[in-house]
Amino acid sequence: MEVKPDRFAIAEWLRSLQDSICAGLENADGKGRFRKDLWERPGGGGGRTRVIERGEVFEKGGVNFSAVHGDAPAFLKQQQNIPSETKAEFFATGVSIVIHPVNPFVPIIHMNVRYFEMPGITSWFGGGIDLTPHYVKWEDAVFFHSELKKSCDRSDTKYYPEFKKWADDYFFIRHRNETRGVGGIFYDHLIPNDQAKHQHYFEFMKSVGETFLPVYTELVKRNRDTAYSDEHKRWQKLRRGRYVEFNLVYDRGTKFGLETDGRTESILMSLPPEADWQYDHRPSAGSEEQKTLTFLRKGIDWLG
Amino acid sequence: MEVKPDRFAIAEWLRSLQDSICAGLENADGKGRFRKDLWERPGGGGGRTRVIERGEVFEKGGVNFSAVHGDAPAFLKQQQNIPSETKAEFFATGVSIVIHPVNPFVPIIHMNVRYFEMPGITSWFGGGIDLTPHYVKWEDAVFFHSELKKSCDRSDTKYYPEFKKWADDYFFIRHRNETRGVGGIFYDHLIPNDQAKHQHYFEFMKSVGETFLPVYTELVKRNRDTAYSDEHKRWQKLRRGRYVEFNLVYDRGTKFGLETDGRTESILMSLPPEADWQYDHRPSAGSEEQKTLTFLRKGIDWLG
Repeated sequence: MEVKPDRFAIAEWLRSLQDSICAGLENADGKGRFRKDLWERPGGGGGRTRVIERGEVFEKGGVNFSAVHGDAPAFLKQQQNIPSETKAEFFATGVSIVIHPVNPFVPIIHMNVRYFEMPGITSWFGGGIDLTPHYVKWEDAVFFHSELKKSCDRSDTKYYPEFKKWADDYFFIRHRNETRGVGGIFYDHLIPNDQAKHQHYFEFMKSVGETFLPVYTELVKRNRDTAYSDEHKRWQKLRRGRYVEFNLVYDRGTKFGLETDGRTESILMSLPPEADWQYDHRPSAGSEEQKTLTFLRKGIDWLG
Repeated sequence: MEVKPDRFAIAEWLRSLQDSICAGLENADGKGRFRKDLWERPGGGGGRTRVIERGEVFEKGGVNFSAVHGDAPAFLKQQQNIPSETKAEFFATGVSIVIHPVNPFVPIIHMNVRYFEMPGITSWFGGGIDLTPHYVKWEDAVFFHSELKKSCDRSDTKYYPEFKKWADDYFFIRHRNETRGVGGIFYDHLIPNDQAKHQHYFEFMKSVGETFLPVYTELVKRNRDTAYSDEHKRWQKLRRGRYVEFNLVYDRGTKFGLETDGRTESILMSLPPEADWQYDHRPSAGSEEQKTLTFLRKGIDWLG
């Protein structure tokens, strides 16, 4: 059934989310400033890429907004069982964030909220937030998940358990048999079949989006002044290597972007400033690094 | 038509190639020694992984041999139009090499030679060598290509032009619109349809395999003592980032290995010890780094 959501209202809200998150992160960093790049998509629409590098707290990170539209590519029509000769439009807008902090005790964070529409055909909401600590601190993971639960519960108490499980399954590095971090929430293809449901999902998107800044700045505050050694930094770079593996091998947004000739520098802003690989690295038994690995698995009930 | 090549002779020759290359590289390095790991594949066969780390010349590198066999997985049967319920075996053996040197003026090198067989159904040879200089030196690229041409010409003078073009197309980072390096040769699915052709391709494999050590040690000798700065090292890490992008996004061997639950640490030995990403990095006009980028394109005739 046809839905006519106000796509402009969503894009406008996402723009303001990007602004407020960038301002909040600059404030938390104290020194780093976001570089702002505007870009246009030849087929329609464009984006605002914002990247911070060599900050006091944030070593590299991106907070990207885009709103693109145009003729639907073949694979989208195929998905919707639309004959390839039929004309169909698409519209997609979202905010994507990945932050790599300087201090190995501050976790990497990722958030994406997005809205997709083929006018007259379908529309859906998707998104997620997940946390990748280089060193898992139980109380931080509990705080993170309890805030996500609150953010989900405002829309529907069924969301957190369902989307938490989805994140466990999605943010998983299959060839390592380990999760990317302590998970979070992930959801996709939430299709509103009436105007009320559309508004409901938009409110959910807002709730998720607005959770990002207070939650991450709290985690930054808790850990930014923790002293660290070269050993900790080395471990951070190995974990960043795993982050690269996930993003280039599995991440659907990255694959989609690269395959559809998206703006490469905006897509790959998610990659860390420095990453290391060491053959068959195994942390010593009983170390903090070893302990972290035991948390990188699906199905941990952080709020149990 | 059925071919019965002597798969054991091929695997045995590849083992000896691994031995001689490891010995030659240790000799060139002077300090680093290969760590040797034997592994078994649950379904049949196994491998000998050899990795060098923190050498005098080689910062990280792998020279891997494997020979695996067993029930053909579904996708292989599909490729050969064999009903999924039909029993079919496969055998695959090869040597794979990637070397990341310490000195940014010594190029990264990759070689793979492989033989594949489904007994009674088909068999083929594949392989390639390609060079990824962090700084392209014309005379080194010319030397590299002229040695590859000699190695090809011993089997067939049509091979070098054909396989050089194949390498340009294969070792290409599509989302960057740049080649991985100065190319080399690449070939796949060379199917012998009689015993003489089988022997011919095996001889070609030998010719390619035996080219590796003298060519690379010469390139090492030419460049290992070139002085370099932190700036050169930074550029090396950015180029290694591109190497990671190619290997995780496009490399067929890596994809195949990860998807078929190969031994992850052996597959990902190709990843560099350290890699960097910087948002929208552009070398300054007229710099050596900028000059290198102009060489990272298809269709350069190094021997013209």
